[in-house]
Amino acid sequence: MNASLLAALKHRLPDLKLSTEPGDREHFGRDWTRRWTPEPLAIAWPGSVEEVRALVRWAAESGVAIVPSGGRTGLSGGAVAAAGELVVSFDRMKQVIAFNPVDRTLTVQPGITLQAVQDAAREHGLIYPVDFAARGSCQIGGNIATNAGGIRVIRYGNTRQWVAGLKVVTGTGELLDLNRALVKNASGYDLRHLMIGSEGTLGLIVEATLLLTDPPPDSNVMVFAVPAMDALMQVFATCRAQLTVSAFEFFTDRALHHVTRHGAQRPFESDSPFYVITEFDAGSQAQQDAALAVFERCLENGWVTDGVISQSEAQARALWRLREGITESLAPHRPYKNDISVRISAVPAFLHDMQELLAREYPHFDCVWFGHIGDGNLHINVLRPEGMPDAQFISECERVTKLLCEVLEKHGGSISAEHGIGLVKKPYLDTVRSAADIALMRGIRGVLDPAGVFNPGKLFDSTPPA
Amino acid sequence: MNASLLAALKHRLPDLKLSTEPGDREHFGRDWTRRWTPEPLAIAWPGSVEEVRALVRWAAESGVAIVPSGGRTGLSGGAVAAAGELVVSFDRMKQVIAFNPVDRTLTVQPGITLQAVQDAAREHGLIYPVDFAARGSCQIGGNIATNAGGIRVIRYGNTRQWVAGLKVVTGTGELLDLNRALVKNASGYDLRHLMIGSEGTLGLIVEATLLLTDPPPDSNVMVFAVPAMDALMQVFATCRAQLTVSAFEFFTDRALHHVTRHGAQRPFESDSPFYVITEFDAGSQAQQDAALAVFERCLENGWVTDGVISQSEAQARALWRLREGITESLAPHRPYKNDISVRISAVPAFLHDMQELLAREYPHFDCVWFGHIGDGNLHINVLRPEGMPDAQFISECERVTKLLCEVLEKHGGSISAEHGIGLVKKPYLDTVRSAADIALMRGIRGVLDPAGVFNPGKLFDSTPPA
Repeated sequence: MNASLLAALKHRLPDLKLSTEPGDREHFGRDWTRRWTPEPLAIAWPGSVEEVRALVRWAAESGVAIVPSGGRTGLSGGAVAAAGELVVSFDRMKQVIAFNPVDRTLTVQPGITLQAVQDAAREHGLIYPVDFAARGSCQIGGNIATNAGGIRVIRYGNTRQWVAGLKVVTGTGELLDLNRALVKNASGYDLRHLMIGSEGTLGLIVEATLLLTDPPPDSNVMVFAVPAMDALMQVFATCRAQLTVSAFEFFTDRALHHVTRHGAQRPFESDSPFYVITEFDAGSQAQQDAALAVFERCLENGWVTDGVISQSEAQARALWRLREGITESLAPHRPYKNDISVRISAVPAFLHDMQELLAREYPHFDCVWFGHIGDGNLHINVLRPEGMPDAQFISECERVTKLLCEVLEKHGGSISAEHGIGLVKKPYLDTVRSAADIALMRGIRGVLDPAGVFNPGKLFDSTPPA
Repeated sequence: MNASLLAALKHRLPDLKLSTEPGDREHFGRDWTRRWTPEPLAIAWPGSVEEVRALVRWAAESGVAIVPSGGRTGLSGGAVAAAGELVVSFDRMKQVIAFNPVDRTLTVQPGITLQAVQDAAREHGLIYPVDFAARGSCQIGGNIATNAGGIRVIRYGNTRQWVAGLKVVTGTGELLDLNRALVKNASGYDLRHLMIGSEGTLGLIVEATLLLTDPPPDSNVMVFAVPAMDALMQVFATCRAQLTVSAFEFFTDRALHHVTRHGAQRPFESDSPFYVITEFDAGSQAQQDAALAVFERCLENGWVTDGVISQSEAQARALWRLREGITESLAPHRPYKNDISVRISAVPAFLHDMQELLAREYPHFDCVWFGHIGDGNLHINVLRPEGMPDAQFISECERVTKLLCEVLEKHGGSISAEHGIGLVKKPYLDTVRSAADIALMRGIRGVLDPAGVFNPGKLFDSTPPA
């Protein structure tokens, strides 16, 4: 069956780069989740938009599912191919197509890495401001398909804000040219925004025109030791009121423990239950003075017990490592991840309930939490106790996640802040979207992808449960 | 037929405020276009979300169409009710529901005016930055349904950027609670963005949570006399590079002619073919010096021949009147309007072709153009020659609009920048959206509004042309 399908594909598209090598199938069949056994039909590397279109038409006719594949740095299984799907990798479509200095846009193919986009912007004296630790591996197509967030959302918003135009291949192989980088275009439904964050279920992104912006002034980085959870939001409010903040992140003592064991340097001699790292404009003496004043104010009020301000770029990078190195330092433990959000104003009450829940339900597990508190976004990493079998560990974490969903519902939050739903969060989608909402999404998916080619089983099932 | 329908509605919703008075039917049956004869079935003023839901369910069951009605300041006929529709006015739903100082959000009912939103924000030391001349009459529900733009898009973006959450009633009477003001929420398709700009064809907006922001520093206003079209973009580039610009608008000598006859004061003694008005941060001496330097640079290069910088708030307001008063000054002439956009980088070449077209095709018509050149958005107002019958005038303008569409297509532009498609631009939708695009929009509309209740005939026909 597989052999005849592939023979038909090769016959239809003799020039398509294709592989069924076990190594490729394993590598391209999974993302950073490690829960599913990769089992794709094959991997295809189209080299052009027309090849993508032909591939999709063939898949729709042949009843073969497609899993779009970027850098596969996702954490929700959105790029997993474990059921005989054809993985469509964009590794061969990674060029910068155009830079426009007047529109301040960069037009790129989907397979370019975030890092390469940032570098190309800087070459022209501008920045692409979306940023996060996976920048070297993740691809812009995946960033757009998941509306990637990261560490500078507080200042620059999510990926959505920076997409001026998209070319997309639908489930019938049609090519859509969405918005064409117009600043103003009130000509019907903005399907560009429907595509952003759709996790590869509505179409394949084959080109993107990204907005760039001016680089910010020079920045400094401060790290604070925060003695109590309630003080976190006081520190945040003080920073936001006095400084131009580009990032405001926090992490716990457990996170510091892991990241310093992984090579990062301790910021302070004494311990503290919480830490904050903030980056802010410091191009002028007045801005630098304001930062010192913030530190003093927080110290006087007992909201922080210690602090450090970067004196050089090297020190700023070292301080950032405390936050950016956390995920990598935890990876060997294969943690179970929650990526949750509430409104900023709901953070204190939510943190209180959440902390109580974690202490009660995970008494013997190492729970590491950190995140983008200025966006109301927390990452919880539950570490697998040594010797506990996978299935038992995940089932235990899923039990607690159901309880966490109740806490989230109480505080108006979301079970996925920036990682997407994919496979991992699918069981909880109905805690954040109503039945009517999900039914509409299903209907829309049927319009864009009538044959159900794209990422079946991800986000939600195309046919409702009986 | 009408009588029995209305009797059934009254029976179903005895407390609903309803009118069939001729004055109400005329007033609520039209927007600022004056091309259609109002002929609604009746006007309903629901007072609550539940009443809206009940109304929609009744309409869907009874086969009655609904035209949602805000301030009816639209220019594309989106709020016209000329075919026995039930107009649903939100005039009774205009309260501020909540202000949240931490989230910096304002939650409002849809019938509140833009001006009232701006005032409520200012009461809390913040601003709602979307702004345009109809602020006193237009309603936020309509602003969102059309993704309203206006004079500060260059700095703050369109309405889309400022909508953190929406409650929407679908065509089956379901209530959707979209995004709930989360900064990060990667949980499936963002239907909020699908609703924004959908012109009342996908759902009724019954509540919105708007983002607010810090007020900008003190600003000044400059008006320049610009001797040639090519110089416009040079002036723009210079201002954008040296100043923090909140607005960059232009208008022609014909626009100045009309607005000064309407009471605005001439900025300069001598005439000029083009004028620019720009607003920029001027809170510091350095910023004020930069403005002077921009003026001198433009003067030296011959890009401007005269200029004035506001010395007081009163003078700034007087200068703004030159631009903001144009639409009103033209209204008695009942102009035919084009509202078009291209990418900013395409403006010079487009302007060249457009000017040629207008000179060739409208040799005897008074063509007044002006607009948001910093967003690539131009408004063309063609004035009705005295004595020319309506039908002949419109048919002549529609002939030229078809030619204008060809020029727009050549330069990658849009036939509607910010006014929407409604009825007026419907014949030209296929010049900016592909057949595949329109088919998808039609499919999506069928999912959200299966009975075809909302604004039938607007934007596009629900059933494709045979």
